[in-house]
Amino acid sequence: MITKIKGGVTAAKGFFAAAAAAGIKYKDRTDMALIYSKAPCTAAGTFTSNIVKAAPVKWDAQIVKTSLSVHAVVVNSGIANACTGAEGMDYCRKTAAAAAKALGVREEEVLVASTGVIGMQLPIEKLEAGISTMASELSDGPEAGEAAAKAIMTTDTHEKQAAVQFEIGGKQVTVGGMCKGSGMIHPNMCTMLAFVTTDLSISKELLEKAVKADVKDTYNMVSVDGDTSTNDTLLVLANGEAGNPKITEENADYQTFCKALNIVNTALAKMMAGDGEGATALFEAKVIHAETKKQAVTISKSIITSSLTKAAIFGHDANWGRILCAMGYSGAEFDPERVDLEFASGAGTIKIIENGVALDYSEEEATKILSEPEVTVIADLKQGEASAVAWGCDLTYDYVKINADYRS
Amino acid sequence: MITKIKGGVTAAKGFFAAAAAAGIKYKDRTDMALIYSKAPCTAAGTFTSNIVKAAPVKWDAQIVKTSLSVHAVVVNSGIANACTGAEGMDYCRKTAAAAAKALGVREEEVLVASTGVIGMQLPIEKLEAGISTMASELSDGPEAGEAAAKAIMTTDTHEKQAAVQFEIGGKQVTVGGMCKGSGMIHPNMCTMLAFVTTDLSISKELLEKAVKADVKDTYNMVSVDGDTSTNDTLLVLANGEAGNPKITEENADYQTFCKALNIVNTALAKMMAGDGEGATALFEAKVIHAETKKQAVTISKSIITSSLTKAAIFGHDANWGRILCAMGYSGAEFDPERVDLEFASGAGTIKIIENGVALDYSEEEATKILSEPEVTVIADLKQGEASAVAWGCDLTYDYVKINADYRS
Repeated sequence: MITKIKGGVTAAKGFFAAAAAAGIKYKDRTDMALIYSKAPCTAAGTFTSNIVKAAPVKWDAQIVKTSLSVHAVVVNSGIANACTGAEGMDYCRKTAAAAAKALGVREEEVLVASTGVIGMQLPIEKLEAGISTMASELSDGPEAGEAAAKAIMTTDTHEKQAAVQFEIGGKQVTVGGMCKGSGMIHPNMCTMLAFVTTDLSISKELLEKAVKADVKDTYNMVSVDGDTSTNDTLLVLANGEAGNPKITEENADYQTFCKALNIVNTALAKMMAGDGEGATALFEAKVIHAETKKQAVTISKSIITSSLTKAAIFGHDANWGRILCAMGYSGAEFDPERVDLEFASGAGTIKIIENGVALDYSEEEATKILSEPEVTVIADLKQGEASAVAWGCDLTYDYVKINADYRS
Repeated sequence: MITKIKGGVTAAKGFFAAAAAAGIKYKDRTDMALIYSKAPCTAAGTFTSNIVKAAPVKWDAQIVKTSLSVHAVVVNSGIANACTGAEGMDYCRKTAAAAAKALGVREEEVLVASTGVIGMQLPIEKLEAGISTMASELSDGPEAGEAAAKAIMTTDTHEKQAAVQFEIGGKQVTVGGMCKGSGMIHPNMCTMLAFVTTDLSISKELLEKAVKADVKDTYNMVSVDGDTSTNDTLLVLANGEAGNPKITEENADYQTFCKALNIVNTALAKMMAGDGEGATALFEAKVIHAETKKQAVTISKSIITSSLTKAAIFGHDANWGRILCAMGYSGAEFDPERVDLEFASGAGTIKIIENGVALDYSEEEATKILSEPEVTVIADLKQGEASAVAWGCDLTYDYVKINADYRS
């Protein structure tokens, strides 16, 4: 049994966190977070597929690939440290070095993540001061996890955490994480910034395998605006403190962990979509009875990425024509004259089209269903047994406002 | 020499037009247009690549493929006649039949185009009445061309026409056209609705070849919102009334016509981008010194399609990080550390980044350049000799407003 619990990156045994107001970009809020485990962690990560990669992405990809133990992650939410050349790479190393010194670990045991403005250089002294403060304030309580989740936010309106507990070999295991959105979100390989910690004992190889498989159904199914960031990073740290017999093969325990990881990642991914820049609603697209998984993925992502559909969701308008249109240009083959479409939310379910043609449905009822904070469209292709779910949000005035003004 | 002249679909000899207020959707404006040539026309067309194709798209594709002569085009701008099943297809045929009867031609010599709401059935009596009115009011004057250009508008803020004149074999030839945007614009194979007429005498085969080649550099390089419509249609009619020796091979005359067609199509495509829904600026992306044309096309389209970049253009913000980011996730390979970026407009030119890193440019000057109604970003990849230009627009509050309310 896997139970959802409160908490985030400090939920699992032996994980500490802290936040600091380092003044990197914001004047009146925290903008740095530190995650730390005294016990060395096995680490796995997935990173942006954008060929313009931020310095911390390059740093982490290298560490995750080569380092056998990781102790800490330093995050800043003011400056992305992307398109910053050799100088930016050097600041990245200096950030890790400062944390290594403060925590008594090695430079290559520290991961670094950034989000914020592209192209500006980091004020490294401010980061170093922030790291020094955080190292002295580390705590494993839920408040520390929450403080970290708040500190990594940029245009997010609330912090995003999720955690679960389950048993393996008689030992209680916890998986907890945090993430942030909420613009330039169209992850490919992983999402903007997400950090998951677990006290599970697992081999590096299997941790990597579990993470790589899971992002396909979670973070990679989210889009806020179709823009794949230069900084997308998911890091998963496992410190083994649960004391379970180490997972070294794909047995039932491994499957249990995969399920737990999926619950945490799905929860974080949905939170990110629902809190997309300017969003008033989480918009979920389910494609069912597709011939292949790939087809279902392509079509569901095309629906949640369509600007016109997103604007219609904002207007609580059952504009199914735009949805069929977005399915049609997705690049996937299907027969539009067999498609059924349904809208669903907390307010009910309504079938809108059958075999590609509109039913005589009540616009009033449809609007009621579309006025909820979580709205789902279900497209039934009637072709096979594959399905996929993608998550996005509506397109609003505030999205434009936030992004026309972001740098100023 | 090719000279730009005023006018649209009635600029070429022997082409007549008319408009009517048929009350299909709008109460207080024209919503139907008719283009007619007494002399039979050679016709070429390109249509949406969306697999959800509107009834008129299916009708026209068939006519253009099989019919040796075309006399008329009937357009309505109230209802798209897409996702309307067999009933919609029948209305399409009835529309052509009504025009054929009124004009004394055959049903299969009449092309039909629609734009507007998806999924509603056409009020066929209203269309028939409109056709009857228009047939009795046909005129070859510029006012008739302008009236037609106005009647095909939906959310467009102004009509879009372009025309050129040149000589072939001692005869004056004219190419003129009109088009409409301005949402659900991300043409693939052609654009929403564009109609070009010419009095040139040319074989069907070469007309088709010229049109097919030209859309790649014109309409297919436009995006307002990334949504490829179900109704995209470009129709080119040539009635031969210029009296030039018929073009039947790819000689110098053919090249001249291709150039003239390109000028008209480029002008129309740019007008469509600049008048995108809610737009305050035409946003042009030039990719130069690319290794291949395909690479240049992919990158330039990725730039003008990025929601974040479009919002930054609305905010007159030189947010080059978003542009590099959009280039990076385009799917095309390039070396981000060799890229130079420049902004240009009527107010001047400014270099923002060199070899992937920001120069110490004046934000004030950049904002001034970005505050013009036409803004260009030039990305120099320094790899080869290929280039491409794509056209889009900024993302504004009004885009959201228009599309959250469209059906109501």
